[in-house]
Amino acid sequence: MFVFNSLICSGISTNRHQRKQNRYVSSAPPRGQYSVLCDQDLNLFESIVGQKNCQTSDLDPYNTDWLKAYKGSSKCILFPTCDQQVSAILKHCYSRNIAVVPQSGNTSLVGGSVPVYDEVILSIRKLNQHFAFDPYSGILECDAGMIMEDVDNRLATYGFMMPYDLGSRGSCLIGGNVSTGVGGVRHLRFGSLHNRIVGLNVVLADEKGSIVKFGSKIRKDNTNLHIHQIFVGSEGQLGIITRIIMAVVPRPNSIQVTMIGANSPNSCLEILRAAQNELCEILSAVELMDHESMICLEENENLKNVLKTHSPFNIIIETMGSDEEHDKEKIEKFMCKIIDEGLAVDGVQAADKKEATYIWKLRKTLPLAPLHDGFVFKHDISLPLKHFFVLSDIIKQRLGSLAKRVITFGHMADGDCHVNVSAKQYSPEINAKLYPFLCEWVVEHGGSISAEHGIGQERRPYKNIGKGYEIKMAEHIKRIFDPRYILSPYKMIYNENV
Amino acid sequence: MFVFNSLICSGISTNRHQRKQNRYVSSAPPRGQYSVLCDQDLNLFESIVGQKNCQTSDLDPYNTDWLKAYKGSSKCILFPTCDQQVSAILKHCYSRNIAVVPQSGNTSLVGGSVPVYDEVILSIRKLNQHFAFDPYSGILECDAGMIMEDVDNRLATYGFMMPYDLGSRGSCLIGGNVSTGVGGVRHLRFGSLHNRIVGLNVVLADEKGSIVKFGSKIRKDNTNLHIHQIFVGSEGQLGIITRIIMAVVPRPNSIQVTMIGANSPNSCLEILRAAQNELCEILSAVELMDHESMICLEENENLKNVLKTHSPFNIIIETMGSDEEHDKEKIEKFMCKIIDEGLAVDGVQAADKKEATYIWKLRKTLPLAPLHDGFVFKHDISLPLKHFFVLSDIIKQRLGSLAKRVITFGHMADGDCHVNVSAKQYSPEINAKLYPFLCEWVVEHGGSISAEHGIGQERRPYKNIGKGYEIKMAEHIKRIFDPRYILSPYKMIYNENV
Repeated sequence: MFVFNSLICSGISTNRHQRKQNRYVSSAPPRGQYSVLCDQDLNLFESIVGQKNCQTSDLDPYNTDWLKAYKGSSKCILFPTCDQQVSAILKHCYSRNIAVVPQSGNTSLVGGSVPVYDEVILSIRKLNQHFAFDPYSGILECDAGMIMEDVDNRLATYGFMMPYDLGSRGSCLIGGNVSTGVGGVRHLRFGSLHNRIVGLNVVLADEKGSIVKFGSKIRKDNTNLHIHQIFVGSEGQLGIITRIIMAVVPRPNSIQVTMIGANSPNSCLEILRAAQNELCEILSAVELMDHESMICLEENENLKNVLKTHSPFNIIIETMGSDEEHDKEKIEKFMCKIIDEGLAVDGVQAADKKEATYIWKLRKTLPLAPLHDGFVFKHDISLPLKHFFVLSDIIKQRLGSLAKRVITFGHMADGDCHVNVSAKQYSPEINAKLYPFLCEWVVEHGGSISAEHGIGQERRPYKNIGKGYEIKMAEHIKRIFDPRYILSPYKMIYNENV
Repeated sequence: MFVFNSLICSGISTNRHQRKQNRYVSSAPPRGQYSVLCDQDLNLFESIVGQKNCQTSDLDPYNTDWLKAYKGSSKCILFPTCDQQVSAILKHCYSRNIAVVPQSGNTSLVGGSVPVYDEVILSIRKLNQHFAFDPYSGILECDAGMIMEDVDNRLATYGFMMPYDLGSRGSCLIGGNVSTGVGGVRHLRFGSLHNRIVGLNVVLADEKGSIVKFGSKIRKDNTNLHIHQIFVGSEGQLGIITRIIMAVVPRPNSIQVTMIGANSPNSCLEILRAAQNELCEILSAVELMDHESMICLEENENLKNVLKTHSPFNIIIETMGSDEEHDKEKIEKFMCKIIDEGLAVDGVQAADKKEATYIWKLRKTLPLAPLHDGFVFKHDISLPLKHFFVLSDIIKQRLGSLAKRVITFGHMADGDCHVNVSAKQYSPEINAKLYPFLCEWVVEHGGSISAEHGIGQERRPYKNIGKGYEIKMAEHIKRIFDPRYILSPYKMIYNENV
């Protein structure tokens, strides 16, 4: 019989994260034939957004990405406050052939939100006034520059919440979430943003700086192509998203978090299957962390596992439901089943919110923890589950003692596998052993080299592996929306001949 | 205190539905400058698909839509059995400028699946061999020509099910479901097809008859524009979908169905809100039927309401969960709340599957029931909930005694409102009073003139109301995929100048 232990909350790290990531060796294409910004351009920008919102100094925070891996050399960041200003900016950039990089919360993990060369940075941060919510339909309409956590907090007052969650919730902006097609830890329960976004206001980088409303404010509308869907996950290649209309979800009364230890990949898969069957409608997340991940958390962040058995695999199961008693009964039944069947070695359930937060802290700190080693080769890979556990061993074997550590964690239920390889510093030897081998292996095995993080700068060299005609189609689509290819050059869709 | 009555199953109609719908007065654009089929074309088609699969006689069932409202005059239907055959057909049609209408299960309610003039009919019915399912990831891969119900039955053997359901489940094909972006009664719970479709195999009507794989077989892939999303709801305008990769859902152990009577629109909205809060994660459908709908069911189908109070509004609440006892407790609590607060007049819960099926039979028969009156002006409108109940009264007032009846039913939780106006026969007077007034009113009030059924032939004259630049963008997108505009002409996207 499984015993519901009380969780011992100890060793919560108070270290601030020192971001030590070095710069990647750049592999960007040469600068395109875009115009260089001149005084007349800056004067015009100032006339559009005002002096305060046209910044030409202290640009380091905007030129540098969150991981400090990439740095551009933009001379100007603009903070428009309405669609009309965005339109006027893009119209001018189109006419002068000036390259533009849209910037949301600048939390990209693949260098997607910073300029590669001297692109003008168009920040959506000050598009943050409009918020409207209908508690009957659950439809939210808000400006793209709002911070995800702020929107979630406002929805909480209506008993609703955002249908996704992610580590950067306190600084990422809704517009960037949509542009990058964010998944996060609750994708399993509430689905992708394609399920949630019903309409978008977008400004295009065309001759007129067209302001276009795609979709509608209702859940179902089959009167045109669902064009707004093509903007979800488009990484700023097609236009500037200025307003979002999305269906959010009722906030559950009961959130339960459990950590489970397992001995083998097969046990992990069977635990996942059992969770889908037994917890079914209340299941909201299934996250995996291997033993090396837990060691990394302890060594680098002084965060101890809540399980004492040191199993090879640790699984976080989160449930969300409307009745705490019912949910706890379901979890008890589920735990009995997986312990009785020998799938789980042990497990602890968080007794309260503090303990639940601690378990999630383990998972949410993992993307940062290996950074203390010096340099991290980060990956955000999606794989069919039969290959999910294989990759880590292959990499370990391939790198031998070159790497300080190889840790694997991720959204197991989505096949999303974050294999992180750390070393004292950037190592060309590791780099050569990893790439393109790793990307080719993933694609050969039916996976994606970027499940969530996108292409940005980091994955651009490998983005076409295994792809065919769909790359050409993406270029054709881009040309419709961004005829001069001035938005986010050198990244997801780029043609050096433009 | 609410009492859980046992349901009296009586009066189940055994009448076969006599489809009496007359033909709409055609408002199609003139025939385009497409080539007329000649013997050489037919010979080539025969050489591609074989004599048996190139049919040139007995075409009435394929030229005529399900409602018998539209009839085309195609001289040929083709039944390709693989991608390569579809490709060869489209390549030839492209080179000869022959118009093609893709046909799936031919269950369109807006004349979308039949030719308008002499387009070649390309049936996907025989693309029905491949079925593969991974019970860990929940990813289904199947050919587009499979019947939705058959796929659902095969998934049942793995403990999974299709994430949508609709009346035509026994005859509609998966490919058509995707092409029309089907919603159905469980949209509330499992989301739109945009949430489910992760990849599509598509054949394009271009110079090469390109066979393209969009998306992938995994849940998360952010390595390119999510192009497959633009095919969901595209009504065959962009290409022929030949294979579908989608994430399906675990089959619940417990399905509960309840019918509730309510007195006012406001009560209905509050019941909806209470259901979202109290039933939350187990809620799978909230359907509305007004009193006139119930009278129509009784008069035309001999189907009696399970409620005895004859309330102005009847609401079906369906739940799906993993624990019957828990679900019933939640429903009891919910029913107590809405009865105590005076929101509901009464309610009955189905005691077993037979009773549940009967309640659903009421709802699923409603689209057919008014057809017995003679002629039905059918609508599939989506509205913000504050306007949901207003439309019916406006129409009644506008038509006075011209209509035999005006009934309102639909997927209330999605704002999806089927207002059906019946008369003894097609009436130009009713037509003139309804259109374009109704369409303009809907758009003015933030709604959609076609929530699910699509544009097809029926809504084509009104499809641009309230729309701007997004129509032009749709034309541009079509041209990328179908450069000569030979797919499904005269419907959702059409340009007479092509």
